[in-house]
Amino acid sequence: MACRSRLAPVLRRAGASGLARAANPTAGASLNALRCIATTPARQIRASRSRQAKFTSDAYPEIKRDARFAEITADHVAYFRELLGKETALIDGVTGEVAADDMEPYNGDWMRKYRGHCKLVLKPGSTQEVSKILKYCNDNMLAVVPQGGNTGLVGGSVPVFDEIVLNTSRMNQIRSFDDVSGILVADAGVVLEVADQFLAEKGYIFPLDLGAKGSCHIGGNVATNAGGLRLLRYGSLHGTVLGIEAVLPDGTIVDDLGKLRKNNTGYDLKQLFIGGEGTIGMITAVSIQCPQRSHAVNVAFLAGESYEKIQQVFREAKSQLGEILSAFELMDLKSQQLVQKVRNSNSPLEGEHPFYCLIETSGSNSEHDSEKLEKFLEDVMTKEIVTDGVLAQDETQLRSLWSQREGIPECLGHWGGVYKYDLSIPLEDLYKLVEDVREKIDAAGLRGDTDDFPVVDVVGYGHMGDSNLHLNVAVRRYDKRVEQVLEPFVYEWIAKVSGSISAEHGLGLAKKNYIGYSRSETMVALMKQIKNLYDPVSNSLLRPVQMYTTDTPWRQNGIMNPYKYV
Amino acid sequence: MACRSRLAPVLRRAGASGLARAANPTAGASLNALRCIATTPARQIRASRSRQAKFTSDAYPEIKRDARFAEITADHVAYFRELLGKETALIDGVTGEVAADDMEPYNGDWMRKYRGHCKLVLKPGSTQEVSKILKYCNDNMLAVVPQGGNTGLVGGSVPVFDEIVLNTSRMNQIRSFDDVSGILVADAGVVLEVADQFLAEKGYIFPLDLGAKGSCHIGGNVATNAGGLRLLRYGSLHGTVLGIEAVLPDGTIVDDLGKLRKNNTGYDLKQLFIGGEGTIGMITAVSIQCPQRSHAVNVAFLAGESYEKIQQVFREAKSQLGEILSAFELMDLKSQQLVQKVRNSNSPLEGEHPFYCLIETSGSNSEHDSEKLEKFLEDVMTKEIVTDGVLAQDETQLRSLWSQREGIPECLGHWGGVYKYDLSIPLEDLYKLVEDVREKIDAAGLRGDTDDFPVVDVVGYGHMGDSNLHLNVAVRRYDKRVEQVLEPFVYEWIAKVSGSISAEHGLGLAKKNYIGYSRSETMVALMKQIKNLYDPVSNSLLRPVQMYTTDTPWRQNGIMNPYKYV
Repeated sequence: MACRSRLAPVLRRAGASGLARAANPTAGASLNALRCIATTPARQIRASRSRQAKFTSDAYPEIKRDARFAEITADHVAYFRELLGKETALIDGVTGEVAADDMEPYNGDWMRKYRGHCKLVLKPGSTQEVSKILKYCNDNMLAVVPQGGNTGLVGGSVPVFDEIVLNTSRMNQIRSFDDVSGILVADAGVVLEVADQFLAEKGYIFPLDLGAKGSCHIGGNVATNAGGLRLLRYGSLHGTVLGIEAVLPDGTIVDDLGKLRKNNTGYDLKQLFIGGEGTIGMITAVSIQCPQRSHAVNVAFLAGESYEKIQQVFREAKSQLGEILSAFELMDLKSQQLVQKVRNSNSPLEGEHPFYCLIETSGSNSEHDSEKLEKFLEDVMTKEIVTDGVLAQDETQLRSLWSQREGIPECLGHWGGVYKYDLSIPLEDLYKLVEDVREKIDAAGLRGDTDDFPVVDVVGYGHMGDSNLHLNVAVRRYDKRVEQVLEPFVYEWIAKVSGSISAEHGLGLAKKNYIGYSRSETMVALMKQIKNLYDPVSNSLLRPVQMYTTDTPWRQNGIMNPYKYV
Repeated sequence: MACRSRLAPVLRRAGASGLARAANPTAGASLNALRCIATTPARQIRASRSRQAKFTSDAYPEIKRDARFAEITADHVAYFRELLGKETALIDGVTGEVAADDMEPYNGDWMRKYRGHCKLVLKPGSTQEVSKILKYCNDNMLAVVPQGGNTGLVGGSVPVFDEIVLNTSRMNQIRSFDDVSGILVADAGVVLEVADQFLAEKGYIFPLDLGAKGSCHIGGNVATNAGGLRLLRYGSLHGTVLGIEAVLPDGTIVDDLGKLRKNNTGYDLKQLFIGGEGTIGMITAVSIQCPQRSHAVNVAFLAGESYEKIQQVFREAKSQLGEILSAFELMDLKSQQLVQKVRNSNSPLEGEHPFYCLIETSGSNSEHDSEKLEKFLEDVMTKEIVTDGVLAQDETQLRSLWSQREGIPECLGHWGGVYKYDLSIPLEDLYKLVEDVREKIDAAGLRGDTDDFPVVDVVGYGHMGDSNLHLNVAVRRYDKRVEQVLEPFVYEWIAKVSGSISAEHGLGLAKKNYIGYSRSETMVALMKQIKNLYDPVSNSLLRPVQMYTTDTPWRQNGIMNPYKYV
């Protein structure tokens, strides 16, 4: 797999910048290999692990199956089999025998935190098929879970009970691309990396990048409003997505797949599906504005004595690198120590430093970019804002440096499990939370180097350029005592600084009950109103206004991704 | 007024690029003066004109006043007077005498196309006051029109009958600014230019710029999803607006004014207010992500032999200027001839050329930018893609070149009136529409140089970088024959190429009946469902789900900006 190879066809030496060279230049190969693992389909990672996840229904006994939903019968299966035609479009654990290995990838998440009892997976091949499936499910009170690459972290794309999985993997065609405007139209099931490689050949880049790019589907990315590594540069999907095709639970096709950069004709309804996590409809295609791919990409890896120093680096980077800054990532020492321990590798820098940051620039002129970056690096070195640093001299080193950041989530899971928090916090307070949590964990005597302690370590890293912290607690085993220290402490802390309990991962099942820490009662009520407009849980007089588009009687039953979200 | 002065503190000569210098360097002063007029508050422009606009109710006799709405009484006025306290917060034409000059600026638009019968203007000073006003209006069936700077082009911000005008001009405070993240929070009534000047002092820029910046309010910009001159670079408001505070017709305050770049906790409801044109609620404050202000700004003005050549210039500009390209504007010869005729000035280039484009770059390093731009200009000259061109050598020339583009709308009105169309069209077809319309106008014998002909000329210009054409037909008088040639021809043409009948101006009253040319029946039905969710026109069993946030009985009556939008 060519990791990031198209991103950096030309890399130049930055010249005599006074910076240290990579301390371990031979580390490149092993690091690259690890980065490639990080983009391997989730199911392969999961298959390589032996421990089976607990059923969600056991882990969350307070969640009861909604008795309004029908049990799937042989008649239902027969309908879907007839509709979809192909044998490969259906995994039937209702009327037939299915090997556990065939069903498990759809029933569980790659973190092994959630596991459902799904007996039927449908893989429609077209929007029309999705429409017919949803209409049938709605008419027959069958609950469904839309699912893309299933790389989420909050249990949003896996069933809780016996919901039918509607998987997008067979809807994987690029529909059109305009190489003057850069507008791509593609099915929801196109893998992010496939879309990006297609665009690379045209000189464009997908305006979203994240660790799971080798597995995640762009429909899922949009449904969860994925943020990722380059939001700092290209903005959020709310700005870059130009059109969406989606299917409502009653089968109505929302044909909002415009290919126009500007279209001010009415409410921008597609926005409700961006980050709607499949609760009001299923996205079947996306139209998106893609920027030109940069000819030049540079990466620097710097160390600072304190979080305050890293904030200064960020300010200087914004000011001096301006329009070419494409990523600014934070890593603390603990996160790097764990990565090196798991990989048995060395740090790119000599010695140990309390904080690290990775800076990426992307631009159209490699000489100009190198000059800007070199000047910036000299400046932050001279002013002693950073204590050490390295600039990638070739593509191997570039990938190796990125791997120090992108490898963290995978490495942290090495000891058994990770409590993961994905948080938005005003920049100046961002790292304080990690210190506070570590202090509380230590005060409770839960962290240590031996098996007696559940907690391996408390680390912080993330997209500092977006004020987005990933607080991770690596553990040897999940332990109620750890959970009691973490919650509701973390959420209360976030509420106090007006942060967000979910910056980019979404709500799913994991954060459904905690939305009140980031949203007011009014906002939650207004959100429930939207859910009830498209997919209400009761078919009473509180039904929304009549739909004008269909002659069939109105019927909507809360079938879309139940038990989750708001 | 300092026009654009903060944008370009440093401008350098591009060196020997082989390009012509400005043909008329002394033209700077008069052009600047004209540009300043273009950003003068709309009411001053209007006051200087003698012709009174027709009442909308006369121009559109098919629109009848909705009899459900109450007439404003002395009791209503007394309530508002008590609530708002200050005499200056209310213009009362109900119980008192009001000079026509005092009421007209709120009753009509600056194009003199729409004119209402409003007798009461309210200028609340806080979100709480807006909430109380709307609740009272909702309870008493009083229709309202939210109004900002009233610079719109589709009649969206002026009353049709006796709707109460809710003007944001007294809500004009900047609430906060974070100079690390660049996040600005400001009241809806802050004038765009004031916000931008505030940001300029901090080294930031408002991510939106348009000709009416001296008058328009940022709340109105967001409510109409304004596009403007730099969408190409900074993206749409759907991406840059991070939070909104708004008031629903029942008085509920939508407290979605987050200051976080990422917040994936539920449906992104604020998006419905962006481009909602005040039909489901009134925006009272906005939180927005502002980019760093560029140290270097360069402007080039180029000529091409054909529209195809200008497309080639655009392709090359995207490729060679990449991340520093901040505007790409198209102007045809006719538009430039009319500007020069009205201003009695010369073109920046010698001779006449069928097409012109204006290219702006903004970056952090003036030497790098000049080098990129110079190389690009040499390339397009050498390849004979452009036939002539000029590069601004100082700030006066920069403003003068921009004025050639920004002055078009104002100059076209010189003869009496303009039929204006704001359209999104796939790039390759974009100019064909202007040719087709000109041909049809000529075939009908309507265009000529004397008073016998209603049409002065048919011109095309616009934000080519966003595929956004402004088709303008300058006329000596509004004439039914011209209208019959234009409509529905233009809209049918747009529907055929899957364009948009309103790229950035919105629907308002002007395009309410034409949305079907750009949106399917399903989409329009779904939009009506949203309108009816928040502000339904009948209080029947079709009411939406119960709001959970208020103890008062539910009552909503379609009071928000009636007769317009969808």
